[in-house]
Amino acid sequence: MPVVGIIGAGQLARMTQQAAIALGIELRLLASSPEESAARVISDVRLGDHRDLSDLRDLAKGCDAITFDHEHVPTGHIEALAADGHAVHPGAGALVHAQDKAVMRERLTAIGAPCPAWRRVESAAEIEAFGAEHGWPVVLKAVRGGYDGRGVWVCPSAEALPALADEVLGSGVPLMAEAFVPFERELAVLVARSPHRQGVSYPVVETVQRDGICVEVLAPAPGLDPEQAAVAQRIALTIANELDVTGLLAVEMFQTASGLLVNELAMRPHNSGHWTIEGARTSQFEQHLRAVLDLPLGAPTMTAPVVVMANVLGGDDPDVYARYEHVMAHDPGIKVHFYGKDVRPGRKIGHVTALGDDLETVRARARHAATYLSEGIYT
Amino acid sequence: MPVVGIIGAGQLARMTQQAAIALGIELRLLASSPEESAARVISDVRLGDHRDLSDLRDLAKGCDAITFDHEHVPTGHIEALAADGHAVHPGAGALVHAQDKAVMRERLTAIGAPCPAWRRVESAAEIEAFGAEHGWPVVLKAVRGGYDGRGVWVCPSAEALPALADEVLGSGVPLMAEAFVPFERELAVLVARSPHRQGVSYPVVETVQRDGICVEVLAPAPGLDPEQAAVAQRIALTIANELDVTGLLAVEMFQTASGLLVNELAMRPHNSGHWTIEGARTSQFEQHLRAVLDLPLGAPTMTAPVVVMANVLGGDDPDVYARYEHVMAHDPGIKVHFYGKDVRPGRKIGHVTALGDDLETVRARARHAATYLSEGIYT
Repeated sequence: MPVVGIIGAGQLARMTQQAAIALGIELRLLASSPEESAARVISDVRLGDHRDLSDLRDLAKGCDAITFDHEHVPTGHIEALAADGHAVHPGAGALVHAQDKAVMRERLTAIGAPCPAWRRVESAAEIEAFGAEHGWPVVLKAVRGGYDGRGVWVCPSAEALPALADEVLGSGVPLMAEAFVPFERELAVLVARSPHRQGVSYPVVETVQRDGICVEVLAPAPGLDPEQAAVAQRIALTIANELDVTGLLAVEMFQTASGLLVNELAMRPHNSGHWTIEGARTSQFEQHLRAVLDLPLGAPTMTAPVVVMANVLGGDDPDVYARYEHVMAHDPGIKVHFYGKDVRPGRKIGHVTALGDDLETVRARARHAATYLSEGIYT
Repeated sequence: MPVVGIIGAGQLARMTQQAAIALGIELRLLASSPEESAARVISDVRLGDHRDLSDLRDLAKGCDAITFDHEHVPTGHIEALAADGHAVHPGAGALVHAQDKAVMRERLTAIGAPCPAWRRVESAAEIEAFGAEHGWPVVLKAVRGGYDGRGVWVCPSAEALPALADEVLGSGVPLMAEAFVPFERELAVLVARSPHRQGVSYPVVETVQRDGICVEVLAPAPGLDPEQAAVAQRIALTIANELDVTGLLAVEMFQTASGLLVNELAMRPHNSGHWTIEGARTSQFEQHLRAVLDLPLGAPTMTAPVVVMANVLGGDDPDVYARYEHVMAHDPGIKVHFYGKDVRPGRKIGHVTALGDDLETVRARARHAATYLSEGIYT
């Protein structure tokens, strides 16, 4: 049976292990600590640093495919692994579009994928000119990574610019400006593509954010016009093809009065796809394994008319397990997922999934369970 | 989060790990080798012997509950663990009914559960008397374990008895005789019961055997009269209550022209319940963990109108993975499970599950995939 190496040991690698167990595929993990989420549930763990090429080479030796739990591996290291003869999915040429927002925007613009207005900026004057042209607020994004844990800043007006520019430009982080999009809601499309160029798309979902964190995913996106859903899937599959993505690609989009705009890309299992564990015939984690091993892809069809996933955020009381009793008794059909991570306020520590026929009922069930697991409060 | 110790490291413990990962529960395994099916996918593996009390005690230290992958742990050892203060589920007093067929028959007879005629036998004369009373063939069963890998012998006639009696009685294995049941088909009912006495029953399924091995499970049992299904579930729940089972109980039954008869009991996840991984809202593996931890039990409802599980038996060519390509391309909705075991002809090495609306279609899909994975033959 093949061995798949995963660089990074968060909850995405952890949930991939559930799919790997079913298929008899062995996972080998590069983790920074044996306490990480995935390292707790995978036997073959190598401790190391994803920025260290020799650690990556040690991991890769004997693996049939290499993939990622996150986007932080240096592009050059990925190229080096491929040059060594390893099957790395996605490849460096694809993954750079999920690592560098300016490279992503340039490429999407070139292939005609709809994007907000954007420009690389290096000075307050350039930001001000962008705002004068496209209107305020202006969204500033770190092209790669971020600064002080943040990668996105919203500058509401020309007047507010000097203070923000001082701080962010002063940090030396390369920036780009984007037009603020007055969106109606956010959608996400998850697609998979394999080296032999088979592609599949999951149904389009709505993602609900609070304070910049995804709190809920509604599958399928309620009330979405089927033609617009098809457009969204076509955009995502086109991006996967044009960028030569192998594995999963999550495309986050804004739905606006004038159409869809691509917001962000991720090339790995994605929070917007956790609902697929129970809600789709093939979970995103199984699909990713099938894609990176160049196996035929699985059916992305839904297993229920309505599926809602709600993230569980850490609250003040770390004893999440004590709250299982109420949640499981209250709703014997709710599916509870806990990532084995230390509980810290606001941190994603798990999720719940509810399935059914009626959106409002299913959504209320998911929200109740997620809120209770987070805070112990019956709402 | 709690730690559950599992004694034994076969595919049942392996599949339990998938459920444990979701719930954030940690498993600790007693395995005889690191190559065993479950030992490959669980981090905390203790090597030891399930017949050695000190190995069991080492495993149990610090576990919140102890349970089993098989029925081979000596009853006295289980009692000793409980006396040490460990939560062992099922307890020795319940599990003995899955270990000792005569104890099981005595108890089921006492509580009025329908059983075939039976009797402990110690001589050819007693077997002949039993056959004269209840008719031939007579089924001989080892009360505990078996002899030379076998535990059941069918003696077709009084004339065939001397040769068989010489061999089986000569081996010194305590025996019982049972009337041969001319059944229409075999059914199984899987129920769960927790220490606080909550019980749930999965739908009744039909199990299809070939050469004494379960090859297919059809859920729900096709065409079963709803009243008879309710009777079957009631029998299983009654047995669970009367025997004080904690965890899962699988009750194998014969359906006959004159009603249902209990054949065998198992107190653990069971082959007849593998379909629940995708086919029920709560898999049997999650259910078993919830039961042994005394958490509220999960919904046993089906996720599709028809679910068929087919076992994959080892064939002559051990390269099962090479056959994934056809099976997955041919049927993108089939769910493939491989246990990470060495492939030997006739050995259960995995299973497949198909879900849908129409029994004949779903059954054909499952059979095709299982046959192909086993033998590489397109039938």
